[in-house]
Amino acid sequence: VLLNADVDTQQVTLTGFDLSMGIQSTFSAQIKKGGTLTLPAKLFGDIVSRLTEGNLTLEEKDEFQVTIKSASCKYQIRGLSADEYPELPTIDGESLNLPAQELTDGLASTLFAVSTEELKGVITGVHWIAANDELEFCATSGHVLSTVTSPINPVEESNGFEVTLPAKAAQELKRMLDANSEDFVAVRGDDGQLVFEWQNQRLTTRLLEGQYPNYRQLIPKQFSRQMTSDRKALISALERVAVLSNTKTAIVKFNLSSADQQLTVSVNTQDVGSGAEVLSVQYSGDDLEIAFNARYLAEGLKVMNTTEVQMNFNTSTSPVVVNPLGGGKMTYLTMPIQLRE
Amino acid sequence: VLLNADVDTQQVTLTGFDLSMGIQSTFSAQIKKGGTLTLPAKLFGDIVSRLTEGNLTLEEKDEFQVTIKSASCKYQIRGLSADEYPELPTIDGESLNLPAQELTDGLASTLFAVSTEELKGVITGVHWIAANDELEFCATSGHVLSTVTSPINPVEESNGFEVTLPAKAAQELKRMLDANSEDFVAVRGDDGQLVFEWQNQRLTTRLLEGQYPNYRQLIPKQFSRQMTSDRKALISALERVAVLSNTKTAIVKFNLSSADQQLTVSVNTQDVGSGAEVLSVQYSGDDLEIAFNARYLAEGLKVMNTTEVQMNFNTSTSPVVVNPLGGGKMTYLTMPIQLRE
Repeated sequence: VLLNADVDTQQVTLTGFDLSMGIQSTFSAQIKKGGTLTLPAKLFGDIVSRLTEGNLTLEEKDEFQVTIKSASCKYQIRGLSADEYPELPTIDGESLNLPAQELTDGLASTLFAVSTEELKGVITGVHWIAANDELEFCATSGHVLSTVTSPINPVEESNGFEVTLPAKAAQELKRMLDANSEDFVAVRGDDGQLVFEWQNQRLTTRLLEGQYPNYRQLIPKQFSRQMTSDRKALISALERVAVLSNTKTAIVKFNLSSADQQLTVSVNTQDVGSGAEVLSVQYSGDDLEIAFNARYLAEGLKVMNTTEVQMNFNTSTSPVVVNPLGGGKMTYLTMPIQLRE
Repeated sequence: VLLNADVDTQQVTLTGFDLSMGIQSTFSAQIKKGGTLTLPAKLFGDIVSRLTEGNLTLEEKDEFQVTIKSASCKYQIRGLSADEYPELPTIDGESLNLPAQELTDGLASTLFAVSTEELKGVITGVHWIAANDELEFCATSGHVLSTVTSPINPVEESNGFEVTLPAKAAQELKRMLDANSEDFVAVRGDDGQLVFEWQNQRLTTRLLEGQYPNYRQLIPKQFSRQMTSDRKALISALERVAVLSNTKTAIVKFNLSSADQQLTVSVNTQDVGSGAEVLSVQYSGDDLEIAFNARYLAEGLKVMNTTEVQMNFNTSTSPVVVNPLGGGKMTYLTMPIQLRE
């Protein structure tokens, strides 16, 4: 970690950078003599995080020999020259001010859906589109797709962007914003980088290259069947029934009846057993039998934070779209599994 | 898991048994038709633990086909005949009534010290000696030794015992007692088994065979040096300093000064760095330099629950005994590490 002590501003800046993602944090300190130095990040963190409250003194005595002192302890660790530490990317120009809460909400509703297969390229990241008065997030693993639209202040056309962030940077951004109580985050981007700044924090990330799938065209606009259900009851039923499903495929069957206004979630696994859960729902459309991967469906339902959800169907082989009812613009899409006769 | 429904007593008994350890739990139920049956434990547990509050109905329809029903769900799993399920050992005769709290405290203060190397035989267990009005627990890994003496009601000589329990059964006993609010546990033993009973619970365990080390003779009775220190401050200092120690050996050095009434805990690891923590202590005896495995020492200090601890030394190569100050009869012994000059 790069440590920079600035005697003029009386501020210390810590920088971590793996050439893809960089984080910088600045705070006030009493500085007698300024300078820069790199320190072994894990060791330095392990010591400082275990100290009790109170002031710390850092002193470089001999070259790169750093003494860390508090009231009752004294540590010496060896640093390195800061000369070869790479500079964090900077981007000039006008920034976009995005509401921090919308960023963390958008990331929470999409991050779980990114592909975790390293070779999948661009879909291992979260896609952002900032245009007009909306910021759209999208993530897809190929099996499921989650997208959220958040309101933002109107964006001039020259300032809008369409980028794909590596999941690791998106996760770190969410973690840092969760620990802060900042209202807005300034974002600047160019072809290869995005830079986020707020208070005394800064996160830079390389962007993922490649054409993100044209996901909007994958989402059906019209549906012939619609179900509204209590979200938590549906998750519980899915999780109980899934106990008896094949652990790899996690297939569960939905039977929807408009006459009974009932959903039956069931499973029947040879040599293991069978199970069925009945839920009261509101359902319109012809009766339907359709099967899902219980895990994928439950993951999507879990990040919604409304009491009720709406599931929209066409046929037993066409994509299903799930929305939280009355709470934010999230669209979760999953493909049904074709049951063998 | 063996399920036995008794129509006369209107009670259900569940039994688990791996031939070494057995657990039996009985509870009331409405039973229309009695019988016994074994069910796949994991599957049965996974379903029942996920159900919401309310009554369950279990029914055996076809042979071994069990239906589990609640208000909104219905599961079918396949059981097996109970014919071949082995019987839990029973021991007749008079029982010893041991205070449950003393058992859990004694186990908490010793279990951490058992050897985890499977081939170490008898020292992978916790040794118990019940005699006169005391129950003594001991565990040792070969590197450290922890022993606790708890007051019990006077034991007749014919009723006393000296046994070694497998750590797994000791842990399970502690877990079960922690979840109960029972005052006393009835214990019966014979050569190869120990049986614990309370309320509607029962735990049986095979005992470890072999001669337990004569540990009492390992514990020094007299000391030429003695230190009293705040327990938590000592643990924190050890943990901070250990950050800089070799991760394998975790060696830290103690320097005790009677003139300064100070303990300095320090480490100096080549290519990593050095650290020193100074603590105010009460110390009597000649100054001493002695080294320990920081992890072993911290583990022992953590299970004591007093504000202060006493450390008793002779020389830098003789065993050190640590006691909680004013809270229970625990004796923790660790060997110092010989420092190369």
